[in-house]
Amino acid sequence: MSTIATRSEPETDPRVRAVFDDIRATRKSDFVNNFWRSLAFDPDLLERTWAEAKAVMSAPSALDPLTKELLYIAVSATNGCAYCVHSHTAAARAKGMSDAQHADLLRVIALAAKTNQLATALQVPVDAAFDADRFDG
Amino acid sequence: MSTIATRSEPETDPRVRAVFDDIRATRKSDFVNNFWRSLAFDPDLLERTWAEAKAVMSAPSALDPLTKELLYIAVSATNGCAYCVHSHTAAARAKGMSDAQHADLLRVIALAAKTNQLATALQVPVDAAFDADRFDG
Amino acid sequence: MSTIATRSEPETDPRVRAVFDDIRATRKSDFVNNFWRSLAFDPDLLERTWAEAKAVMSAPSALDPLTKELLYIAVSATNGCAYCVHSHTAAARAKGMSDAQHADLLRVIALAAKTNQLATALQVPVDAAFDADRFDG
Amino acid sequence: MSTIATRSEPETDPRVRAVFDDIRATRKSDFVNNFWRSLAFDPDLLERTWAEAKAVMSAPSALDPLTKELLYIAVSATNGCAYCVHSHTAAARAKGMSDAQHADLLRVIALAAKTNQLATALQVPVDAAFDADRFDG
Amino acid sequence: MSTIATRSEPETDPRVRAVFDDIRATRKSDFVNNFWRSLAFDPDLLERTWAEAKAVMSAPSALDPLTKELLYIAVSATNGCAYCVHSHTAAARAKGMSDAQHADLLRVIALAAKTNQLATALQVPVDAAFDADRFDG
Amino acid sequence: MSTIATRSEPETDPRVRAVFDDIRATRKSDFVNNFWRSLAFDPDLLERTWAEAKAVMSAPSALDPLTKELLYIAVSATNGCAYCVHSHTAAARAKGMSDAQHADLLRVIALAAKTNQLATALQVPVDAAFDADRFDG
Repeated sequence: MSTIATRSEPETDPRVRAVFDDIRATRKSDFVNNFWRSLAFDPDLLERTWAEAKAVMSAPSALDPLTKELLYIAVSATNGCAYCVHSHTAAARAKGMSDAQHADLLRVIALAAKTNQLATALQVPVDAAFDADRFDG
Repeated sequence: MSTIATRSEPETDPRVRAVFDDIRATRKSDFVNNFWRSLAFDPDLLERTWAEAKAVMSAPSALDPLTKELLYIAVSATNGCAYCVHSHTAAARAKGMSDAQHADLLRVIALAAKTNQLATALQVPVDAAFDADRFDG
Repeated sequence: MSTIATRSEPETDPRVRAVFDDIRATRKSDFVNNFWRSLAFDPDLLERTWAEAKAVMSAPSALDPLTKELLYIAVSATNGCAYCVHSHTAAARAKGMSDAQHADLLRVIALAAKTNQLATALQVPVDAAFDADRFDG
Repeated sequence: MSTIATRSEPETDPRVRAVFDDIRATRKSDFVNNFWRSLAFDPDLLERTWAEAKAVMSAPSALDPLTKELLYIAVSATNGCAYCVHSHTAAARAKGMSDAQHADLLRVIALAAKTNQLATALQVPVDAAFDADRFDG
Repeated sequence: MSTIATRSEPETDPRVRAVFDDIRATRKSDFVNNFWRSLAFDPDLLERTWAEAKAVMSAPSALDPLTKELLYIAVSATNGCAYCVHSHTAAARAKGMSDAQHADLLRVIALAAKTNQLATALQVPVDAAFDADRFDG
Repeated sequence: MSTIATRSEPETDPRVRAVFDDIRATRKSDFVNNFWRSLAFDPDLLERTWAEAKAVMSAPSALDPLTKELLYIAVSATNGCAYCVHSHTAAARAKGMSDAQHADLLRVIALAAKTNQLATALQVPVDAAFDADRFDG
């Protein structure tokens, strides 16, 4: 059950087909998950979202691929996005996340959620020492 | 301005003093930031929170120290905790985060926030392929 | 499965019956959705919540009915309320939301979630030019 | 105070200059607000974020410009992003939002936040009638 | 700095005056805090919001006044509402909240934030034993 | 479906067994709910989380056990944690929460969510009168 009606043959639209093919080629897998199938109701939205996801998550960058997946899980869990927690935990595991790393991720994001709550409830004033201009200039 | 009254001499309490000394020793710095000063109104809460933070963030574990700071920033930004974003960005920079890594962190957490929003608005059903039991046997 | 026990015959309570009848009359439909059925465990809570929802969403006001539904979806998706996303997307569609408008809504709320994340992670200082007093006086 | 060090002359970088010039041309104003100035520390992030914001918010689309600003405010307030609430309320006012529309916006997003909370606390099961497949065929 | 222009003499409007007078009488204090002053730009919004706040927070009900303030702080901290955390912590203290109760509140809401994060990241399936229908018959 | 693979016999690990036995003894019940079963994949995480939950929720403290459960529900609903809302509503009911108290809880947390939204959308400046230093000297 979704807020968008299911398309039985989304790939009859050539723009959708092109994106799905690129997803398969990028991931070296035939599987196209429901997130992309849902977005296919609007080919422009599908194209732009996939282009950004591919650029950020699949291109080489300053952070390694597994770290990026862990960050994705951290944001998704904090936002309470069940779908995203599932899809990115599976992705992290596919990229080599061990059980020990998974547990460590959980320890850090649980601690962060806890101290976020404390800092906000106490309305702790920001220390002047944290000003970025003190580091760079 | 905080929701807790300022203590002018918190370290006259020996339990507070012991925690502050351990913070200084662990960080090899004289600086004790406002978060710990605010928590000092209740020594038990201070002790337990510091013990957990030290165990999770300072002890060697499956994830390296910089990755743990990046995860902390990701959760803190998603929760909208201004204090925590400031303190952990400063901590990440102190642990070597480059501008390129900072920009990459921003790209990933912004993309995650965006796709979290899309997945939730579309109520995308979770794919059976993401079930953890399929990975572990 | 809910946190409130199901009432098999909620309309035997005349206060509940009166609210359900008003819901049916206002919407010109026999359907009373689960949200109101759940609230029926406390007739006062049901009456007040329905009175507010009717006044805000059904009475003529400065914003048109479809715009109000789109705003409702925007808040509900951001809060991660699966039930509310479903019910208000159905309501928006019943009020004429097209697929193109749905896609545009998704583009805007996804962009907003993304730049909210960036602005919070960067702790961007508010420009003086945004002060409301500059516009009105 | 921000998490990124202030650049005194960001427009000496030609990529930053090009984006700022496009912001000024698009908005027919000399003013470039702090959000874009903060992002200028990474020209790629600046370019991509501006390109998306311009495409979604300034190009003609299925929703009118004021409705899109109201949706932006709705998401930003729900996410607790002070900067974004300020900047997009100013933008909405510049696009003609009246006090009556502002008050109506507040009524809807406050009601939505309230019923989101109720639906989540009650864990109301989603009605089958809300299934999108029932609407489209 | 607010998103609404300051009214220098809001009580020249008799509807605003009536609400402010009722706030003063209910609280037995001359002080009317900024939240109500901000809402005064729209007398209808002010009247309805105050009526609800008075009915819920000031009328005798199944929960005592201090417990209701603690719950208000819990929600406000979780939503990251700085204003509300300040105003309701002050209200709780005025209603007798001790430092020990304040610390206990912090312990509980910090633990809840932490285990919320864990349960969401793990996507723990809800136990059938928690079904409300099992309790009520 | 969870992000962690199911362990068929988690109590063959003596550390897991010890925690589960303590959960049963503390609650005087044979039932160990899924949250603890999920955490059992990492005995250290299980032990520390249970130790904190037991200390905060089961030990005598400045707030009574039912009030602590109500606060837990308030945070969990605001964070949108379906599992936690279910488990702590069941716990509150087991500790004596009446339907009238449940309805009152809902009234307060719904009002708080609403006024949080209003205060954030209006960016209401914090009154100097709320400064904690004014109360304590």
